[in-house]
Amino acid sequence: MCPSRNSFTRKGDNGELAIVDRIRRRAAGRTYPGVDLGIGDDCALIRTRPGEETAITTDLSIDGRHFSLKWHPAEAVGHRTLSRGLSDLAAMGARPIAAFLSLGLPRDLVKPEGRKPAWIHRFLDGFLALATQYAIPLAGGDLAESPIAVADIVVVGGVPRGKALLRSSARPGDFLYVTGALGGSAAGLNQLRKSLTRSAARFLRGTKDDPLAKHLRPQPRIDQGQWLLQKEAATAAIDLSDGISTDLNHLCIESGVAAEIEVAALPVFRGASLEQALHGGEDYELLFAARPDAPIPRSIGNVSVTRIGRTIKACPGQARITMVSPTGREELSRRGWEHFVGKVPPSRKARLSS
Amino acid sequence: MCPSRNSFTRKGDNGELAIVDRIRRRAAGRTYPGVDLGIGDDCALIRTRPGEETAITTDLSIDGRHFSLKWHPAEAVGHRTLSRGLSDLAAMGARPIAAFLSLGLPRDLVKPEGRKPAWIHRFLDGFLALATQYAIPLAGGDLAESPIAVADIVVVGGVPRGKALLRSSARPGDFLYVTGALGGSAAGLNQLRKSLTRSAARFLRGTKDDPLAKHLRPQPRIDQGQWLLQKEAATAAIDLSDGISTDLNHLCIESGVAAEIEVAALPVFRGASLEQALHGGEDYELLFAARPDAPIPRSIGNVSVTRIGRTIKACPGQARITMVSPTGREELSRRGWEHFVGKVPPSRKARLSS
Repeated sequence: MCPSRNSFTRKGDNGELAIVDRIRRRAAGRTYPGVDLGIGDDCALIRTRPGEETAITTDLSIDGRHFSLKWHPAEAVGHRTLSRGLSDLAAMGARPIAAFLSLGLPRDLVKPEGRKPAWIHRFLDGFLALATQYAIPLAGGDLAESPIAVADIVVVGGVPRGKALLRSSARPGDFLYVTGALGGSAAGLNQLRKSLTRSAARFLRGTKDDPLAKHLRPQPRIDQGQWLLQKEAATAAIDLSDGISTDLNHLCIESGVAAEIEVAALPVFRGASLEQALHGGEDYELLFAARPDAPIPRSIGNVSVTRIGRTIKACPGQARITMVSPTGREELSRRGWEHFVGKVPPSRKARLSS
Repeated sequence: MCPSRNSFTRKGDNGELAIVDRIRRRAAGRTYPGVDLGIGDDCALIRTRPGEETAITTDLSIDGRHFSLKWHPAEAVGHRTLSRGLSDLAAMGARPIAAFLSLGLPRDLVKPEGRKPAWIHRFLDGFLALATQYAIPLAGGDLAESPIAVADIVVVGGVPRGKALLRSSARPGDFLYVTGALGGSAAGLNQLRKSLTRSAARFLRGTKDDPLAKHLRPQPRIDQGQWLLQKEAATAAIDLSDGISTDLNHLCIESGVAAEIEVAALPVFRGASLEQALHGGEDYELLFAARPDAPIPRSIGNVSVTRIGRTIKACPGQARITMVSPTGREELSRRGWEHFVGKVPPSRKARLSS
C-alpha cells in the first residue's frame, strides 16, 4: 500500500507549511457553489452565476494603524479584517462568493501563548465565524513572516451585470440615507483604549447597541446592499469606513454633485458624540442616494434607514458638503482619516485609520 | 458653469487621496475588455469570457523578507511584485485580466527624493511597465501608511472552465519538464548584495542571460502556461517561486506521487551553482508534468523546455524526490524558503524569501 495524500506533511510544527495546512483544514469544512478550487494550488478558481460580473476589493489592516495588538483581541482583528472587505461588497450590492487573506506576522504570533492557541488561530476564529455567517469560504491567500502584523483582505462577489451600486451615479436632487447609527465604532475604540484588556470575552460580549461591540464586531450591511440593488432603489452608494465627512465627499466627487446634511436628522449612536458620528469612521454602515420618489423603508432587514439630507448641484466656490441646522449653515470639511497626512484633528486622535 | 469632476481634489500634496488620484490617472491610460469598472469605487468589476472561470491569487512582498529597500531599485520591487502574481496565473494556464495592489509604505517613500520622483512612483514605473507588457490593468487596491514597506499583489485571470493546469493531477509515469534555466535569480541576488547600489540603470540594463536581470526583472511564463493549457499537453503544473526542491515537493504531495530528477539534465542558469538551481527560488519558471507520449517541444515562445525527470508511485519510507546521477541516487530534501522556520541552509543565507 502506498501512503494517502499529505502523509508527508510534518505535524506539530509552527512552520509556514504546517500553518497553511492547518488553515486549509479549518477552511475546508464544506463546499461552496462558487468556488471550484480553494486553498492548495497556484490560484483559486471562482465561478459567478450567468449574467453576473465579479466585484473585487482589497483592504490592508496594519498593526498600529488599523488595529492594535495592545488593544484588540485577536478574534476582533480577524472579524474586523473580513468586515472591511465585506462592507465594500455591501456598498456595491454584491453577494459574497469568496475571501482571500494575505497575512504577514511576527514569529511570536504563530506560536501558542501558554495554554492559549497562537494569535493567528484566534484571529482565524473571529475571521471564520464571520465568514460562516455570510457563507463565504476562505479560498486562498498568502502567509509570510513580517516584523509587524499586517493582513490584506481580498473579497470577491457576484453582481448582476450593469446593476452594481456605484459611487458615481447620484444626481442633484436625490435624497441621502444612512443605515444604522454613526459614531459607535469611534466611541467603542475610546472605551477600549481606556481599559487596555484584550480578552476574547470582551470580543464576544455586548449587544448591538454597545459601542464596544460595534467597534470590535462591526456587521457589514450585505443584506441591505443586496436589497437596494434588487429593488433598484438607490442611485449611488458607498460604505462608511472613513467617516461620513470623508465618504460623502467621495460620493459627491465621483457623482459630480454637492450635498446638504440636516444635522438634526443624523442618527448618532448611543454614547457617541456628533464629532464621532461625522468623522469617526469604521462604522461600516451604508450611505446611499435615491430619487425623492423612491419608496425607501424605515428599516431593511432589521437595520434602521434614516434620511439625512439631499444632493444638490455642485458649483465652484461653494461647499462640497453643507451642514444645515436651526442656527444656520456651515461647511463640513473632510476630516476622516487620511494616510500620509500629518494633521489629525484633536477630536480624532483616538481613532485608528480605516 | 459648474466644475468638472475631481476639481475639488487637492493638487501637489502627498496625502493618500492625492497619491491614489495620481495612481488612478497613471493606470487609466486605456480601456480593457475584461474590466467594467477600475480604480475609484468600493470594488472593481471584472468580467470573464463565456465558459471561463476566474483564477485569483495573492502574494505578499515585505521589505527585509521578499525584497530589500537597501538592495533593490524601486522599479525592480514593482516589477517583481507583479511578476509573483502573474507567475501563479501562468502556472494555471490562465490569461491575465486585472491586477490589484495593496501598498503599506513608510511616509518617506511617498515623498520625492531630491530631484527624483518618490519611491512609490518609481515602484509604479516598474509595476506598470510589466502590466503594459501583459495588457493587464491596475484595477484597484489599497494604500496605507505603514512602519515597513509591504505590497500585496492580487492578480485575476480567466481560464476555460475545467481546463486549468492544477498541481494535483500528475500521475505516476509522467515526464517532468521545466521552462528556462534555474538558479539565475539566486545568483543575481548574490551579485546585487555585493555591489549595494540600487540605481534604476541597474534595473534596466542586462540581457536575459544575465543573473542580475533574471533577479530584478523575472519574466512570468504566461505564454508558456497558456500554450500548455490550449494544447492540453500537461497533466499538472506549478511555478518555481520557492525553489524546485520545495515546489516539486508541493506538486508531488498534491498529486500523491513521488519524483526522480536527473541531475545531469537540470538546466542550470549560466553563473549559478547546482545548489542555487535546486533551492534558490524566485526563478518564476514553470515546472510541469506530461504523459510520456505528449509532444512537448524544445521551446515554447522562445523559452527553452527541458525534460528533467519523471514522476513515480509514492511509497511509504521512500524519498519523495530522488536525485539520480551517474554516481548514484540521493534523496532531495525540501530546502526552499519556509517562513517561520529558523534554520536556513548555509547555501541559502543570501536568498530572500518568496
